Amino acid sequence: MARAINFNAGPAALPLAALERAQRELLDLGGTGMSVIEHSHRGKAYEAVHNEAIALMRELFAIPADYEVLFLQGGASQQFAVVPMNLLESGKSADYIVTGAWSQKAIKEAKGLGKVRVAATTEKDGKFARVPKQSELELDANAAYVHMTTNNTIFGTQFHEIPEVGKVPLVADMSSDIGWRPFDVSKFGLIYAGAQKNLGPSGLVVVIVKKELVERGRKDIPVIFQYRTHAENNSLYNTPPTFSIYLLRNVLDVVKAAGGLAAMEKHNKKKGELIYAAIDGRPDLYRCPVERESRSLMNIVFTLPSEALETEFLAGAKKLKMEGLKGHRSVGGIRVSTYNAAELAWSEALAGYMKEFHKGS
Amino acid sequence: MARAINFNAGPAALPLAALERAQRELLDLGGTGMSVIEHSHRGKAYEAVHNEAIALMRELFAIPADYEVLFLQGGASQQFAVVPMNLLESGKSADYIVTGAWSQKAIKEAKGLGKVRVAATTEKDGKFARVPKQSELELDANAAYVHMTTNNTIFGTQFHEIPEVGKVPLVADMSSDIGWRPFDVSKFGLIYAGAQKNLGPSGLVVVIVKKELVERGRKDIPVIFQYRTHAENNSLYNTPPTFSIYLLRNVLDVVKAAGGLAAMEKHNKKKGELIYAAIDGRPDLYRCPVERESRSLMNIVFTLPSEALETEFLAGAKKLKMEGLKGHRSVGGIRVSTYNAAELAWSEALAGYMKEFHKGS
Repeated sequence: MARAINFNAGPAALPLAALERAQRELLDLGGTGMSVIEHSHRGKAYEAVHNEAIALMRELFAIPADYEVLFLQGGASQQFAVVPMNLLESGKSADYIVTGAWSQKAIKEAKGLGKVRVAATTEKDGKFARVPKQSELELDANAAYVHMTTNNTIFGTQFHEIPEVGKVPLVADMSSDIGWRPFDVSKFGLIYAGAQKNLGPSGLVVVIVKKELVERGRKDIPVIFQYRTHAENNSLYNTPPTFSIYLLRNVLDVVKAAGGLAAMEKHNKKKGELIYAAIDGRPDLYRCPVERESRSLMNIVFTLPSEALETEFLAGAKKLKMEGLKGHRSVGGIRVSTYNAAELAWSEALAGYMKEFHKGS
Repeated sequence: MARAINFNAGPAALPLAALERAQRELLDLGGTGMSVIEHSHRGKAYEAVHNEAIALMRELFAIPADYEVLFLQGGASQQFAVVPMNLLESGKSADYIVTGAWSQKAIKEAKGLGKVRVAATTEKDGKFARVPKQSELELDANAAYVHMTTNNTIFGTQFHEIPEVGKVPLVADMSSDIGWRPFDVSKFGLIYAGAQKNLGPSGLVVVIVKKELVERGRKDIPVIFQYRTHAENNSLYNTPPTFSIYLLRNVLDVVKAAGGLAAMEKHNKKKGELIYAAIDGRPDLYRCPVERESRSLMNIVFTLPSEALETEFLAGAKKLKMEGLKGHRSVGGIRVSTYNAAELAWSEALAGYMKEFHKGS
């Protein structure tokens, strides 16, 4: 069977070379006669993979020495709780920039754990068509942290500038756009990302966190949820998701060989330009509800004039082996997820289809 | 490279057929043109795998209809905290049966979250050579639950009878022996097990829990840690570790084809008899520190008269491609982990080596 054109929102397409390597090595990691899945997390063979994954994260993301790289479990949804458990000191409140369903979930968990403030929201009639401007942020200079979601998979919006938040640590859920281009890690206090978009498989969440914040973290919470527990043990306090980390290593290796994050940026911009041009080229047929400056290059959303036309559009795409184009059930429409591993040819094929769809009708 | 003889304590050997199937299908799940890792957790192809894994758990473990099967993340170590977070009501205390390092970690997390009692401990000079007898349990009839660890990977002990605890819900960490033989799920209120021994890869924890306990669970904890959240969403509240669940499915399928848990019991007893006979056959050379009635059939531990002899023993085993025999760093000695997927031929080979080692010396 030929490889599908995979526009899934996540879990999503991974680099074919990373999967092929996993397939080749699946029964025998480096001549050990065991699958990576069967290796002890305390053994040399796995340890080498683990440390290579951390080293590749540090290298590709230019992570400063005063930051930890942690491999955790439970996804970004667990971090919605674990971040305030660690960082929301009593007597302080946390600022949340609300830009969609994921930040709403994040603030909801935080509310149950301490005091929170909405520093900005772009909600309008239950929808989010943009991210806020710097001038719209009402920041508390004494906040424990400011939380943001850098990219919104459902509404198709993305921050193209990192907000300035002064001396308060900036915490970012980057699950859906981490590594889409180079960025300055030192602007953040803590970054968390479920791996299943740009990094690897589901079941792994990568946390990049300033050592100072790890040290300041609360100690009156369970040991397993303290960032310091995992920082002090090189993410080997308990058994890590070894295969997921192995596959992250494979993916990062492919990204490095392709030219790193700068190459990803060029690649992603090209793909985005193709799709947005196809949308804007036929304003009678396609409409992107997102304001231009907030348009996401990871999740491109648009609608057609009727549900019937959308159904027809999706059916035609399916015939061309394009998968995952249906918009999130909460908003409908079409969604094109083009993470790092989505190929340029896929966007070309989709743009071509969009140009021809109901042409002259 | 030939397959190693894998006595790892976990992650550990998996059935070769389950891995071979994963390898075959890794780039294309069922003709979809996508890896299972690339499929959406909301799509039909993954959903079928997910539901088949749950159905196989229910069938093989004869799980009653009033129990939920949940697929969570964070390992057993996270459940050490999540169990009391859900079940330790204020005003109540929880009973812990302490039989080794894992129960000690479990009680430590619970202590930070509420009131706990030690219902029994078999600690003696920092070691655990047995599990307690029924008559030794000092149970609180009003406890929120009684917690036990069914098998102890480090000290090589195992419960061969399920303790009677009256009407109090029995909570068991079964990470290292779940499914080693058939057992009566209805005797437990909640069972949790990190998958990386008898079930599959690391990064997945299976929870079997009585619906009544799910409903009674506390609501003043983060949504992500409430069992009800995952029960109400068929373990799809947030993105599950899809590949780990896929591999669990493959493993359960192999176990079923082999004759289910009754077949596992025969298989595991045969392996255990071989190794324990080899230990007991040469009392001059090998000594098992565990009392006979508490001997584990999953992790068989023994010592030799000196560290030098142990080092020589391990080196000789390595030449025969036997891996993972070094005892846990906290206790030393030799440890033979023979979970369900460890082959009979491996135990035969080891028993043969043990018979010949320093023979006539």
